[in-house]
Amino acid sequence: MANKPPLISPGIRAKLETARVARLATLDAERRPHAVPICFAWDGSVFYSAIDHKPKRVPPNQLARLKNIKETPQVALLVDQYDEDWTCLWYVLVRGEAELVSAPAERKRAIQSLRAKYPQYDADMLADDAPVLRITPGRITAWGKI
Amino acid sequence: MANKPPLISPGIRAKLETARVARLATLDAERRPHAVPICFAWDGSVFYSAIDHKPKRVPPNQLARLKNIKETPQVALLVDQYDEDWTCLWYVLVRGEAELVSAPAERKRAIQSLRAKYPQYDADMLADDAPVLRITPGRITAWGKI
Repeated sequence: MANKPPLISPGIRAKLETARVARLATLDAERRPHAVPICFAWDGSVFYSAIDHKPKRVPPNQLARLKNIKETPQVALLVDQYDEDWTCLWYVLVRGEAELVSAPAERKRAIQSLRAKYPQYDADMLADDAPVLRITPGRITAWGKI
Repeated sequence: MANKPPLISPGIRAKLETARVARLATLDAERRPHAVPICFAWDGSVFYSAIDHKPKRVPPNQLARLKNIKETPQVALLVDQYDEDWTCLWYVLVRGEAELVSAPAERKRAIQSLRAKYPQYDADMLADDAPVLRITPGRITAWGKI
């Protein structure tokens, strides 16, 4: 990494390690916000998310999140968990840049982390050569019970 | 409303009526994405969300979502529910414009809907004069089991 990742508390670290879903906000070609839920793996400094075999509305190369980050790498990644007891609410907001991983070794490592985190990925849901996004945090903020 | 709301299926309608949380993506002053979880009420055509008494990191008038929509009204509102059974996954993505509600009658109606939906709001969590955002959908898309 060119830059050191932001320092984060053990509470935030625990949330980022265990959360099963995040919401990825990107900008479309007209620089309007777009958002999708994503599965992700965090290696302690960057986040990885793959274009997997869950059904898609369009072919992978047409996916909004990929087209969007190519034009505008700035993204927001929101990790949170809703609870009816509002004293338990929390969120972690990661702002940074996303890029398609091009190095095969890094992609392989990312896919291994995703398969290790999500048993669903063992069942043919994730190709060895699936496109992988790397999200490099620039700033991490948190709110609530963390 | 000046424009008719987008036509949506009964499945999407049901999700928007029952979902307890959404994630609101906005743009910051540098036009980079920002996102927060929000509670909301949908009246069948527009979405309302209030600045309530949950603790905030900053005073209400400094809240990122309010500053952001003042500069750039375009927002994305993502409604989804994660499930470990990936055949059950779905999301609804609402793209549109957000504005602070200025008419007292509309704000009152919005606050009533929010209190009706969230029992938590009965317990002094929402002031009668709380700032309320109105999100007017321009486009609604859906994916998955809906």
